[in-house]
Formats: sequence, structure tokens, C-alpha cells
Amino acid sequence: MAAISCSASELQPLLGAAANATAAAQYICGRFDAVSNKFVDTAYAVDNTYLLFSAYLVFAMQLGFAMLCAGSVRAKNTMNIMLTNVLDAATGGLFYYLFGFALAFGTPSNGFIGQHFFGLNKFPSQSFDYGYFLYQWAFAIAAAGITSGSIAERTQFVAYLIYSSFLTGFVYPIVSHWFWSADGWASPARAENLLFGSGVIDFAGSGVVHLVGGIAGLWGALIEGPRIGRFDHEGRLIPQHSQGLWGEWILLWTMECNRKNCSDNHNGWMLSSTDYSLREALALGHWNLTDVCNGLLGGFAAITSGCSVVDPWAAIICGFVAAWVLMGCNKLAEKLKYDDPLEAAQLHGGCGSWGIIFTALFAKKAYVEEVYSGQPNRPYGLLMGGGGKLLAAHLVQIVLKLLRISSEEEMAGMDVTSHGGLAYVYTDECNDPAMLKPGFVVSRTGV
Amino acid sequence: MAAISCSASELQPLLGAAANATAAAQYICGRFDAVSNKFVDTAYAVDNTYLLFSAYLVFAMQLGFAMLCAGSVRAKNTMNIMLTNVLDAATGGLFYYLFGFALAFGTPSNGFIGQHFFGLNKFPSQSFDYGYFLYQWAFAIAAAGITSGSIAERTQFVAYLIYSSFLTGFVYPIVSHWFWSADGWASPARAENLLFGSGVIDFAGSGVVHLVGGIAGLWGALIEGPRIGRFDHEGRLIPQHSQGLWGEWILLWTMECNRKNCSDNHNGWMLSSTDYSLREALALGHWNLTDVCNGLLGGFAAITSGCSVVDPWAAIICGFVAAWVLMGCNKLAEKLKYDDPLEAAQLHGGCGSWGIIFTALFAKKAYVEEVYSGQPNRPYGLLMGGGGKLLAAHLVQIVLKLLRISSEEEMAGMDVTSHGGLAYVYTDECNDPAMLKPGFVVSRTGV
Amino acid sequence: MAAISCSASELQPLLGAAANATAAAQYICGRFDAVSNKFVDTAYAVDNTYLLFSAYLVFAMQLGFAMLCAGSVRAKNTMNIMLTNVLDAATGGLFYYLFGFALAFGTPSNGFIGQHFFGLNKFPSQSFDYGYFLYQWAFAIAAAGITSGSIAERTQFVAYLIYSSFLTGFVYPIVSHWFWSADGWASPARAENLLFGSGVIDFAGSGVVHLVGGIAGLWGALIEGPRIGRFDHEGRLIPQHSQGLWGEWILLWTMECNRKNCSDNHNGWMLSSTDYSLREALALGHWNLTDVCNGLLGGFAAITSGCSVVDPWAAIICGFVAAWVLMGCNKLAEKLKYDDPLEAAQLHGGCGSWGIIFTALFAKKAYVEEVYSGQPNRPYGLLMGGGGKLLAAHLVQIVLKLLRISSEEEMAGMDVTSHGGLAYVYTDECNDPAMLKPGFVVSRTGV
Repeated sequence: MAAISCSASELQPLLGAAANATAAAQYICGRFDAVSNKFVDTAYAVDNTYLLFSAYLVFAMQLGFAMLCAGSVRAKNTMNIMLTNVLDAATGGLFYYLFGFALAFGTPSNGFIGQHFFGLNKFPSQSFDYGYFLYQWAFAIAAAGITSGSIAERTQFVAYLIYSSFLTGFVYPIVSHWFWSADGWASPARAENLLFGSGVIDFAGSGVVHLVGGIAGLWGALIEGPRIGRFDHEGRLIPQHSQGLWGEWILLWTMECNRKNCSDNHNGWMLSSTDYSLREALALGHWNLTDVCNGLLGGFAAITSGCSVVDPWAAIICGFVAAWVLMGCNKLAEKLKYDDPLEAAQLHGGCGSWGIIFTALFAKKAYVEEVYSGQPNRPYGLLMGGGGKLLAAHLVQIVLKLLRISSEEEMAGMDVTSHGGLAYVYTDECNDPAMLKPGFVVSRTGV
Repeated sequence: MAAISCSASELQPLLGAAANATAAAQYICGRFDAVSNKFVDTAYAVDNTYLLFSAYLVFAMQLGFAMLCAGSVRAKNTMNIMLTNVLDAATGGLFYYLFGFALAFGTPSNGFIGQHFFGLNKFPSQSFDYGYFLYQWAFAIAAAGITSGSIAERTQFVAYLIYSSFLTGFVYPIVSHWFWSADGWASPARAENLLFGSGVIDFAGSGVVHLVGGIAGLWGALIEGPRIGRFDHEGRLIPQHSQGLWGEWILLWTMECNRKNCSDNHNGWMLSSTDYSLREALALGHWNLTDVCNGLLGGFAAITSGCSVVDPWAAIICGFVAAWVLMGCNKLAEKLKYDDPLEAAQLHGGCGSWGIIFTALFAKKAYVEEVYSGQPNRPYGLLMGGGGKLLAAHLVQIVLKLLRISSEEEMAGMDVTSHGGLAYVYTDECNDPAMLKPGFVVSRTGV
Repeated sequence: MAAISCSASELQPLLGAAANATAAAQYICGRFDAVSNKFVDTAYAVDNTYLLFSAYLVFAMQLGFAMLCAGSVRAKNTMNIMLTNVLDAATGGLFYYLFGFALAFGTPSNGFIGQHFFGLNKFPSQSFDYGYFLYQWAFAIAAAGITSGSIAERTQFVAYLIYSSFLTGFVYPIVSHWFWSADGWASPARAENLLFGSGVIDFAGSGVVHLVGGIAGLWGALIEGPRIGRFDHEGRLIPQHSQGLWGEWILLWTMECNRKNCSDNHNGWMLSSTDYSLREALALGHWNLTDVCNGLLGGFAAITSGCSVVDPWAAIICGFVAAWVLMGCNKLAEKLKYDDPLEAAQLHGGCGSWGIIFTALFAKKAYVEEVYSGQPNRPYGLLMGGGGKLLAAHLVQIVLKLLRISSEEEMAGMDVTSHGGLAYVYTDECNDPAMLKPGFVVSRTGV
């Protein structure tokens, strides 16, 4: 292929007296072709830089989860939960490498499950590079991270690893194929046969990540039952360490939206926070840092779905309602004696669901057409005059996820309970001198 | 518009025997225009990638502030100060969205206060995109973060929120308009009527961020008076938690300069550190980690203003002097019984002021002309032979900030004191079993 | 130089009836030259964005080292070790600015030691900009960070600073010149006279960073001897704080490979982890978080060398073996009564060495030719059919580093011991009320 470099002394005779129009045209056009190819390379470099550093930020959420979990459980369980989080990333990565990515993005597919790239075979391909795998892997283990919080402090360790690998290697990838792969049956990027003529708009994962993680956590926690002693006393049993708050901070930091509309996001959680806090303060006469932070995180979980297609003012409404949704879910959990040490199911499941509905209500015509430019006259938000089709598609998403993940969970949950279930000895070891012994042995909780 | 793609078979007849020079020229030039437009798009993508990830780093400073604050106050106040930092970002963001950005960058303006983009109306515009808003918001809440340290442990919570919103929504934006908006009266980027023919060079905010935050903190701390018991004992009352040191580390990490001259920065704080430490060691016979870290941070605060226009060797001088400035400010504060739990006013106000003066002394001709290329023959650093005009402009900056922020502070300070002032009960609750109760209620300090 | 902008009305007469072929050709080619230059500028912008944010991530490893060290030593030494880490970066930066960068990258050189850019004189140059300095500085202090762990808790403070400055300013730069500078005698990027026709492939520093840091730590720890009481009891003396685990997490986060093959990396540590953990669990009946994390870090240290030239499946083998190497090194250290508080020499030295050998075994022909495209028919991995030359070069690397650094270490080690050596008073001060006094004075360990 010709280089861009152009030599006047070469070109001149072609244009001159003894002109050779064919050669001149080839000479000039050859250079334009080179320019065009160079732009493709440049776009690849810029896109991959953006993708890689975004993947690092998404992966940093694991740090936030680990800190949040560690700070939310009793001191004696700190090492256990952190080990859980570390191995989530490691074993999850192995399973996502062997199966998960293939099930999620192995196009062409039948729309329900991917079929190529097992073990990253024939990879990188025309469409995907390693950076993309890394990015998707970071999301996959985020879903597992959400789940780990719900079933903290009462799950047998090896069983948890099996369960987590199953989630990262199979459950999450299949769901993400439906909505995020170009030929998933509910994907908004399909060339034809879009669900309700629209497909589900879930830009960054209110449904695919938060709702999946939340439901998985919900079922895990239901199957295992509450921690011993959780409902013998009033209020929350477990004082959070301040470490947990570093975790919340890091999560807040990392859960920044990844596109040009990212500021929407912030507007969303701002009001989520202030609203929630003020309400708490009025109701209870105090400001609770955990509740404020969870209010913020709930706002994030909710806006994740629609951040690419809504206006900032809508994001504020999103955050405002998310805080109420979270409070409602927490009240309900309290009443039903559902024990979730990190409020993970309420926060990610509840606010994630709200986010999916919110997007179907407030998606703006101009943004939908810009983001999914392939097809004209797409449905958009119900309250923006775009009809009910998007809402129908989004409700289907919620219902199907509830059904499918639940059934898979139940199977996996069997493993969890059969492998050990409540394996802890509930003495308070905080002041036990044995705790100061070296190595932080997670005794009695291991195999 | 024509694409870049060029077809030799189309171009050939235009150049050939039956040549059509007009069409040929249009054909060729149309493709160059397309190339030119493509470069504009590419530059937009690269610039925004850079801007967005820089904004994330600036936002990470909040994490550093939160840890530093939490580590620098007594254990009983940890939750309170962290809640403060979380809500700073949230409510500050709301106010910056509604008013602040408009006041800061709503051009065209009268030079004193911006007038467009309230609530991000008619946004994104020709000049600004959401990424830019996000970036500026991160700086705005950094100024509030500095302030929160100065008035820690004795400020009524709701009053603080009002005060912080006022700072982020009004005081900081107006000051940043003066120096950073293209038509601010003291901006070096004005098309004409530059202050002293130069305007103020404050590249990354020694003045706009650090000095504003420092002065706001200074007045807040003066109005409220020292913490009870602060000057009854010798030395510092409050042992820092090691958490505070994570904060310092994260601040050090994030306070990296954002441009090609960023290495200057490091040279600056290197010597700041070693100098300061050695001096401390000689004087007191010990190495104090907090002092060393604050010496480093002081060097950062100082170099922030001039990092784009000075040489590395000058940056070393900057850091060397900054350490002395900080020590001087601390001695003065001790003598005047001024109590600032985080040395925030001394560090950000004192070293920030030094940085502003330093830039006026050491700005190099070649760099000034490169960065502000619009106007030839600009003044530059006094000691570099560039005359006293830049110094005059920079001294005006310091004096005006002191005056303006002080008067606004005093008004806001009234709120703080009238709303509650000293609301703490000073019993040592560290070993109180109540502290182990759930939820970290910030009792008696809330509404 | 001509701009890209092209005017049809200007070009038309040149092509038309009264055609001026020379001018037409110059006109057209001038614009192509402008396009070409614009691409150079664009590539510079993209590359520097990538480089700068990568440098920030590398620098974030210091945060991880600081936390890991702080969590791995006894509480009384926390402040001391953190001060060490902070000043490592600061004084190391000063020495790297004055000497180190020049010795490492001051080409043209004699192949053994660089000779230009002292104090960044005549910098930026044609080949290097400030961003590159920043990036290399971050690696240089990483090597020092590894070392600080090995000799923790028993090194006189001022002596350590001298030792660390020597390492960052002289030892590390010279070694990095050999392998990473374009004209280093063992560099794979040399134009001619490649070592064994190949040079050493050490993409991101298994040898240059990890092995250098590990050997320096090994010799330091050998010279100083174990901590008092270390081998009087069974097992590890020192309980890690959970802070140390944040450190491990942050290290895990930052030690992500920096190129398109970065996913290889993850595959590597995945299996490293699971393998190591499972083995531990079987052997000891428990899961030890520190061991799991160190297994992961060991996998990272090993894959660092070859990450640009191996396939994902090979990376899994790399991690698998790395875990065994680490366990072997730890058993050996136990037997030889070698005391390394952070297992730094075992992890970085042992696994780093394995990584260098691994690369010589598994480097793939296609990748080697892509990465080092200048020379055809290069040797590649022994087990991939590429012959033994690469292995020979890599073994030379290991042996020479052992020899050279050892001799330099011994000299420097003299300083360490003569300056103070064991300066601690070994009372357990954890519950000492004096610890709650302000300022965290590192008494008795300073000058």
C-alpha cells in the first residue's frame, strides 16, 4: 500500500505536458487511501487507550467491594471475606477466560448463548481484542462482587468459590449475551427482529450487572437464611469498620459513568444523596454515614442503565427516586427478616430494577437515535412521548432475569448449603489474643 | 461532505485528455477537507479521553481528603468528618450544576461573573462538553475539601453543608471566572486589556483552588475559634490515625501535574520533602511523618500555579522555599493560637500564595509564549528578566482574594456560628462500648 | 509548511488549460506533507496520554508497597516504614533526576552506562519527553520499594535513605541501561551485535525491576541478619494488619500489564492463585490470605518479562509454576533462617528469575517478530522451537545481576550496618499510652 508521503517531483510529470492521467489519479488516490488507513489505526489506538483505562477503573471496584465487605462484617470474618473477594477475581477470571467470554460474546450466535472463543481460541478476532476481554472480565467479576456481600459471614468457603465461578463463568455471561452482544435476542444493537422493535437499553449494566448480582445475592441469602443472632436484637448487628467507608468512597469514585453523558450520572447521585440524607435526618434525628453512602451507590446503580440516553435533569429524578426505592427495600427486608449484611440485594437489585424502568420512561429521542444510529424511528421513553414499547422490553428484562437466575441460583445454592452452610463458631474473638497470632488463619471456615 | 475515500477511476477522466480542471480541483480538495474534519474529530476524542481521566484523578483527591481528615481528627469525630466529605461532593455537585459552572464559565461575560449555562442549559455548547463540566466540578469540590479540614471537629453539621454549598456554588466559581475563564478580567487568555499587559498565570490553581480553599478555611477557623482544649496542652492534641497517612499518600498520588511539564512538579516536591525533613530532624531530633507529608503537599500546592511555565531547576527552588513557608506559617499559627486541625490554611493558603509569587519570579519567556501564544511580548518572570508586571498582577490576585473571600466568609461564618457552633460533648468515647453499636450515629452533632 | 486546507479555486488554474504541473504537484504534495505531520502530532498526543496515565498507575504501586509494608511490620514500626516509602519516592526522584535517568537512557552510550541528560540537561530531546522521564522514575522507585520490604524493621533510618538513593540513582539505572536502552549491550532493540543474536526480552521488568529489587533486598537482609526473635518461635512472628491487604489489593490492581497482551497476564495470575491456594489448603488445612495474595503477586512478577511475547495459555503455565517457585523459596528461606518480613526477595527475586527463564522458553515467533520488527530471524522460545540462544541470553542476565548487584550491595550494606543497624528497642508498645501521643515520633530510630 502507498505511504502518505508525496513527492512533487514524482507527481509533476504525471500532471504535466506528457500527462498520464491514470497514473496521476492512482498516485493521488493511493495517498488518500493511506491517509484513510492511518485514521483507522489512530481510532484503534485512541479507542483502546480509553477502553483499557476504563477497564482498570472498573477493576478498581473490586478494591471497593473488598473494603466495603471487610468493613461490614465482624472483625473475625474480615480475612475470610477479603479472601473471597481476591479469589472471586482470580477464579472468576479463569472461568471467564475458559467459558464466560465465549458464552457472552461468541458471535454469530442463536441469540441466546454465544458459541465461539472458548479459551480465547482464535482471538483476537476482527471485532474483539484483548482489551475488550479485559474490560468485560472486570464487569463479570463485579457481578460476583455484589453477590458476595449478600451471603457474607455464613457461607462455606469452598462452596462459595464454586458458586462464584458458576456465576462468573455461566450465569452472568449468558445474561450479558442477551442484552450486550450484537446478536443477543434482546439487544438494541441487533440488525433486525428487535424485541418490541427496540431491544433493551442497558448502557452500563443496571440490569446486566447490578440486577443480576442483586438477584443472585437475594437467592443466596434466602437459601442460607439470616446470620445467627441477626434478628434477636434490634437494628443492625454489626458495626462497620471505617475501612468499609473507604470502600464506599472507592466505589463512588469508580462508579463514574464512562461516556460523554457521564455528568448526568453525578447529577443523579447528588440528589439521591441529599434527599436521602435529609429524609433520614428528619425521620430519625441523625445522619448515618452508611445510609448516605448507600443512597449514593443506589443512585449510581440506577443511572447506570440509562446514562447514555437521558438528560441531566432526568438523572436527578432517577437519583431522587432511587433513594426512596432503597429505603423501601430496606424496610421490606427488615419486615421479612431477610438478612443481607451489605444491603446488596436491596441496593443493586432494587435500585437496579428502578434504573431499568427509569430508562424506559425518560430515554430521550435524540440520544437514542444518536447512540443506536443504525435504525430510525426507534421507541424511546414513555414519558418523553416515545410510547410503551421500550417499557415493555425493559419489564421483560426484569421478569426474565428474576426467573432465570433464580432457577440457576437454586441449583447452585444447593451446593452452597450441602457443602457446609453455617460453618462458623460464633464466639466473639475480637479480644482473643489468638487473633494476634500470625497469618490470619481462616480456621474452621476452610475445607 | 465528501469522504476521504478517493477513486482513481473517478479522478482519472477529470485529469485526462478531456480534462475538467474545476471538477478535478473540487474532487481533490473535497477529500482534503474531509481529512481536515477527521483530524478535528480525532483531536476531540484524544482531548476528551485525557480530560476525563484527569477529572477522575482530580476527583480521587476527595478520597485523599476524606482519609486525611478522618485520620487527623479524634476517633469520635471520624464519621462526622467523612460524612462531611461525602456530602461536599454531592451537594457541592448539585450547586455547581445549578449555579457554579454558569458563574465560572458562562461566557460571554462582563469579566467579573459568568452569565450562561445555569443548570447546564444549552449545554454542551460549541466550546464546552460534559467532560469539561466534570473536570471543573472536581476542582470546585477540592476547594471545599481543603476548607473542611480547617474547621473540623467544631462545626455544626447542617451549617457546614450550607457553608460548603455556598463556597462551591458561588465563591469559588466567581474567583475561578476571574482567572480561568477566557474573558475573566485577570485571565491571561483574554483577547485584549490584559491586567498589567499579562494577566495572572495560575495554570492548575495555586491561587484559584489552594489559596481560595486556604483563606476560606482560615476565616472559618478564626470565626469559630480553636477546639476546646487545643491550647491547654503542649503540641498537637490529636494523634493521627494511620488512615490519615493513606490520605496523604493518595493526595500525593493525585496531585500530579497534568501537562507535559509535570516532571517539574516532582522535582519540586522532592526537594521540598528532603529539605523539610532534614531540617526537622536537625531541629527536633526526630522524623515526623505528618510533617514530611505536609512538606510534600505544600510543595505541590506551590508548584501548581507555575508548573506549565517554569524549568525543573526552578521547581526545586519552589519546593525548597515552600517547606520553609509552611514551617513559618505553622510557627505563626502556634503563636497566634490559631487552630487548624489539618494545617489546611497554612499549607494551602501559605504555600499557595508562595506559589503565585514564585511563578511571577521564575516564569520562563519561551514557555509563557508557548502556552499563551495569542499575544507576543508578554511579561514573564521578574528574575528571568521579564520585568515586574507579572508580579504586580499576581500580587493583585492574592490581595483581592484575601479581601473578597474574607467578606463572603464572614457572612457565611455567621451562619455557621448562629446555627450551632460548638456542638460537641467532649468526653472521650473511644473506649465507650456505645461506640461499638451499629450505624455510627453522629449523635448530638446533627440537626 | 503548508496547511491541510485546500482551495479548489487555487488549485483549478494549476490543473487547467494554462496548466502549471510543477505548481500543481507542489500544491497537492504540500498538503499531503501537512497531513503526514499532523499524524505525527496525533501519535505523539495519543502515545503521551497512554504513557502518562500508565506512569500514574505505576506510581500507584508505591501506595500499595506502603500499605503492604505498614501492614506487615509490627505496629510500632508502621510510621517508620511508611516514612521510608514516602522518602523513597522523594529522594529517589531527586537522584533519578540528577543521575539516574542519564545513566539509564543517556544515549549514545558505550553499551554499559548512559552518558547524557544529567540533571535533565538538554531535555526534552528528539527521543524523550518529560512524560517518559516520569514513567521511568516510577519504575525506578518501584525497585527501591521492593527492597525496603526485605530489610524492614531493623534498618537504621538515615542509612536506609543513603542506600535507597544509591539504588535508585546508580544501581538500578545502570542495569536498566543494559536491557532497556536502545544501545544497551544486552538490549533486544540494538541495531547490531545483539547478545546471542537476540538480546534479552524483558518487556516490563521481571529482571530489570523485580530481580534487581529482590537481589538488593536479599543482600540487605543477609547483611543485617534476621530481626531479633524472628527464629525463636515457630512460624511468622508478625501478624499482618488488614492494611497490608489493602496494599496487596492495590498492588494487584496496579500490576496490570501495559500492552495489548495484558490479558495474558491475568490468565497467569489466575491459575497461580487458585493453584497455590488449593495446594496450601490441602497441605495445611487452611486458607491463608497473605499466601494467596503473594501467590498472585508472584505470578505477576513472573509474567512481567514475557507478557508481550507469549500466548495466554503459556501465561497460565507461568503463573502455575511461579506459585511453586515462591513456595520453594519460602521453604528455603525458613531452612536457612533468612528473614524477609515481606517475602520480597523470594517473591520478586525468585518469581522474577522464573519469569526470565519462562520467557526464554515460551516466547512465540510471531510475537517476537512483531515486537522487535527491526531484525528478521531472531531466536525465540526454546520450547516453541526457537533454539537455545534466547535462553542463553536470559541466563546471562540472571547471573550478571546476581554478581553485580551483590558487590554493589555489599558496599552499600556496609553503610547500613555501620550507621546503626539494629536500632530498635523491642518492647511491645502497642498498648503503651505513649503511642497515643501526637505526632508519631519515630524516636530512637532517627539520627
